[in-house]
Amino acid sequence: MSIIDHVTRRSFVRALTAMSGAVACESLTRVIMAAPSKNTQRIEEPMCKCESVMKPGNETILILIYPGFTSLDAIAPQHVFSSMIGAKVKFVAKTLDPVRCEGGFEIIPQLTFDQCPDSPTLLMVPGGSMGTLEAIKDRATVDFIRRVGGGASMAGSVCTGSLLLGAAGLLKGYQATCHWQLLELLPLFGAFPSTKRVVFDRNRVTGAGVTAGLDFALELVRFYRGDFYAECVELLSQYDPQPPFPRGGDPATANPAVVSFLNEMHQPFVKKTAEAIRKAENNQHSRS
Amino acid sequence: MSIIDHVTRRSFVRALTAMSGAVACESLTRVIMAAPSKNTQRIEEPMCKCESVMKPGNETILILIYPGFTSLDAIAPQHVFSSMIGAKVKFVAKTLDPVRCEGGFEIIPQLTFDQCPDSPTLLMVPGGSMGTLEAIKDRATVDFIRRVGGGASMAGSVCTGSLLLGAAGLLKGYQATCHWQLLELLPLFGAFPSTKRVVFDRNRVTGAGVTAGLDFALELVRFYRGDFYAECVELLSQYDPQPPFPRGGDPATANPAVVSFLNEMHQPFVKKTAEAIRKAENNQHSRS
Repeated sequence: MSIIDHVTRRSFVRALTAMSGAVACESLTRVIMAAPSKNTQRIEEPMCKCESVMKPGNETILILIYPGFTSLDAIAPQHVFSSMIGAKVKFVAKTLDPVRCEGGFEIIPQLTFDQCPDSPTLLMVPGGSMGTLEAIKDRATVDFIRRVGGGASMAGSVCTGSLLLGAAGLLKGYQATCHWQLLELLPLFGAFPSTKRVVFDRNRVTGAGVTAGLDFALELVRFYRGDFYAECVELLSQYDPQPPFPRGGDPATANPAVVSFLNEMHQPFVKKTAEAIRKAENNQHSRS
Repeated sequence: MSIIDHVTRRSFVRALTAMSGAVACESLTRVIMAAPSKNTQRIEEPMCKCESVMKPGNETILILIYPGFTSLDAIAPQHVFSSMIGAKVKFVAKTLDPVRCEGGFEIIPQLTFDQCPDSPTLLMVPGGSMGTLEAIKDRATVDFIRRVGGGASMAGSVCTGSLLLGAAGLLKGYQATCHWQLLELLPLFGAFPSTKRVVFDRNRVTGAGVTAGLDFALELVRFYRGDFYAECVELLSQYDPQPPFPRGGDPATANPAVVSFLNEMHQPFVKKTAEAIRKAENNQHSRS
C-alpha cells in the first residue's frame, strides 16, 4: 500500500479539500496533472483552493545499488520515498544490468552513472558486507559517489553505506552513523561517529544498521514534506513496530551473549574492512 | 549486513564452539558444508562438538511476487529469511520475466509457478493495492496460492496479501490480519479479523500492513530456529525502531486527522476491493 498508486487523483484532491478548506493550491494541481491519469481532463479545471496540507514536490532521489548491497537498506527507503507525490525516485548503478543483492535476488537499475543528474536532491547509498568492501575498492563507484553525492543537496546512507560516503571523502568533519559493528571505523574517514539512529549534519544524513532505513526515510519525508505528510506515510506503512525482543535491536541493551557471539563472528570482516579503508585512504593521499 | 554472507563459515563454527562449549553438532556441520565455501575442505573434519546454539535448517520458503506488489511487504521478510543458514528462499512468479512492484522498479523472479515444490515449508504472499486487486481476479495466481499454500506447512501473508490467501480459500475459519484499512474485508472469506500485528493460527500466519513484515519474519525465524537465532538476526538488522511519530503507526493511537484523511482518500479503493471479492466469491460458489 503506498500513497500514490491506489487512489484516484481526483479523490486525493477531494480529500485535500475536505481537510483544509479551500485556498489556491496550484502547485499540487500541477503535480497531479504531471502524473498520467484518466481523470486528467477533469482535474485540469482548478479543483480546489486549499493550503497544501500534504506539500507536493519534485525532488530527485537517487539510490545507488551495487553487487552485494543489502536489499532492505535500499528498499525500505525506496518504498517510503516513492510515497512522495511528484518526486522522482530511481535506482542507479554502473550499468542497466540486473544487480544481485546480498540476499541473492536481482533488481533492475533504472539509471546508469552517466544518466544521473549531477545535482539531485538526495543521493542515498545502502550498505552491505563483502559487496560494500568491493565497492570501496571500485574507483568508478567511489568517483560516482564523490561527484553526484558531492553535488547533491544532501548525501545520505543507511548501514555500512556510510563507509562508501566516507571513502568518497564526503564525511570529513561530519557527525555520522553506521551499522553498530562498524561504527568504530568512521574516524578513518575523519568522521565523528554517533550512536544515534538517524544523524543529520548539514548536508549529510546517515542511518544506522539495515532497519534504520525506515526511520531515516521517514525523517527525510518529514524534512521534505512536513509533519502531516510524514504522519500519513507512517500510518499507511502501519509502522507500529513490535520487535520479538523489545530491546534486542540495540547492542547497548540486547542480550550480552548475542552481542559477543556476533562480535566474535564478525571480527574478521571488521578487520578486513579496516585494512581496505586504510589502503584506499593511503592510495588517495599518495595520488593527491 | 546479513548473517551468512560476510563471515567465513569457519569463523562461524569457531564462534559457535566458543559460545556453547563442545558437544557434537553434526547437523550444523552438514548445513555449513552444503553451502559452497573455499573453506569447505577444512570444515569437512568435524570442527566442534557443540549444541546447536543457532539451529540450522533446510526450510523452503517461497515468496510470491506479482505485478503491483508492495516491495517492502516482500523484501523485509526476504531479508530476514535469507539469514536462516541452510534455508532456500525464492521469489516466485508466473514467469521469470521481471515483475514491476508498486514502487515502480523491477525484480527478477527465481522460480515459476510450475517450478515450485508443492509442499514448501512456507508460502508467503505480499500485499499491494491495485495490483492485489488484479491478482485476486487472476485465476492462475489464485489457483497457485490454493495449491502451494494449501500444500505448504504454513501459508502466510503481509498486508493485503491476506486478501489473496482469503481468495484462495485458505483463511476460512482462521484468525487473520491485514492492512488496517482493509481488515474489515476479511470476513468476506470466512476469516476472523484480528488487530494483532502478527497472527499465528494453526498453519496460517498473517502480518498487518507493510512494515509488519519485519515482525512477521522475525517471529517466524524464532519459530523455525529458536530464540537465540532470532535475537541474532534482530540485532544484526539493528532493529531498534524509532518512528518519527512514536504512536503514529497504529490507527488506534495515530493523529485522528491523519486517520480520517487516509480513510477518506482510500474509501473508493476499499469499496472497489470489496466488490471484486464478492464477485470472485460468487463465481466460485456458482462453479462449485
